[in-house]
Amino acid sequence: MTYCLGILLRQGLVLASDGRSNAGVDQVTKVAKLSITAVPGDRVICIQSAGNLATSQAVVTELLEAAGRGDPAEDLHKCKSMFEAVHIVGERLRRVSETDAKYVEPYGDPTASFLVSGQIKGEGPRLFQVYAAGNFIEASQRAPFLQIGETKYGKPILDRALTPDTSLDEAAKLGLLSFDATIRSNLSVGLPIDLLRYKADSFTADNLITIEEHNLYWRELRETYAGGLAALVASLEPPPGAGGAA
Amino acid sequence: MTYCLGILLRQGLVLASDGRSNAGVDQVTKVAKLSITAVPGDRVICIQSAGNLATSQAVVTELLEAAGRGDPAEDLHKCKSMFEAVHIVGERLRRVSETDAKYVEPYGDPTASFLVSGQIKGEGPRLFQVYAAGNFIEASQRAPFLQIGETKYGKPILDRALTPDTSLDEAAKLGLLSFDATIRSNLSVGLPIDLLRYKADSFTADNLITIEEHNLYWRELRETYAGGLAALVASLEPPPGAGGAA
Repeated sequence: MTYCLGILLRQGLVLASDGRSNAGVDQVTKVAKLSITAVPGDRVICIQSAGNLATSQAVVTELLEAAGRGDPAEDLHKCKSMFEAVHIVGERLRRVSETDAKYVEPYGDPTASFLVSGQIKGEGPRLFQVYAAGNFIEASQRAPFLQIGETKYGKPILDRALTPDTSLDEAAKLGLLSFDATIRSNLSVGLPIDLLRYKADSFTADNLITIEEHNLYWRELRETYAGGLAALVASLEPPPGAGGAA
Repeated sequence: MTYCLGILLRQGLVLASDGRSNAGVDQVTKVAKLSITAVPGDRVICIQSAGNLATSQAVVTELLEAAGRGDPAEDLHKCKSMFEAVHIVGERLRRVSETDAKYVEPYGDPTASFLVSGQIKGEGPRLFQVYAAGNFIEASQRAPFLQIGETKYGKPILDRALTPDTSLDEAAKLGLLSFDATIRSNLSVGLPIDLLRYKADSFTADNLITIEEHNLYWRELRETYAGGLAALVASLEPPPGAGGAA
């Protein structure tokens, strides 16, 4: 399983992807599910992937190879908008699926899905989700985050606290707490976590960090949050009894 | 959708069930998904249900009608253990499914699942989950809670904080916070919530309360928790930047 999160804010984008891949509990490995291609000063395009690893890697690898070659139908370095970029990803997914799906299906689910985000000069940062069918939706002020993979455990904290006005650092904390909730409840999502804070109009992805198992910040974040949450719950009044004001 | 939660503690049981039923967004009504049958001083047996409402109501109604009639194959007032009780529920579910499922399937999913819990004199409180197939599992010290229906959003807070030594009141708070998370993230789970704290060896279910939309305790719990959580998150350090100690 996988968990990938994309957050669209006024200040920019926060992206986080877990790095565990498993085809059964005895085939666990670490993979990168966040790929970035950039033309400094002009564009940063990020692709987060979930689902069948062969399918998603084929899509991403072929797109990265095509970037800069100048074919307008598939060049992420030449397309004029993020809308065109996500269209290119969806089309590539359809072609890979047409080629591979029928061979893969006897062994398992061949589908993959993506978060495609970034910024191309001339427009603001944008964030999309590409479904297995190759169609896609865009995040908006009303729905400032998108998730793929194991999405549910980590959703409540985002629903509670995230708004388009949240800062990049605050959203990064919430994103990591969302991963913490997911990792505690689903063993197949795991570290490392790739975390990118992309500042609008910076056109650079150099603030990418990778959080490994023994990362001190990660451990302190989890412990402080767990301790604070326990104290908060303890401070709440218990429900009234049957004789009370229920 | 439905969310039902059962928690097994050294002190007893905490059960909570939401009360929303919907067959599409234009057919929303309130139903009881927590049924209790008791022989004071001897046994309390609780059935929480999720899934197809016609199926689950048929199972529960038939079992409540059979209770006290003396047929050992289906009398929840005469069975000798909670293991026998849950077996009776599973068998009844299989019979209802055999009768109805083929007629219902063209219109939707006919399956239902249950949490069956309580205490029969001579043994401690027990908690089981009955699957759609009529088979079942039992909660244990290692897995002190079971859920049916929309289970994921409300699981992280339980995974974090619940142990078999948690008190009934603390577990009731955690249970309500688990419902709060679920209700915020899934519109099809909604109030009222039926909440039972069953004290071991009390053999009475008189501490059952129903929390409606405008319940003052519920509103204060949600607001205090949301405010405390926001303050907690704000107090945490932001992740280090790419140049930091990541």
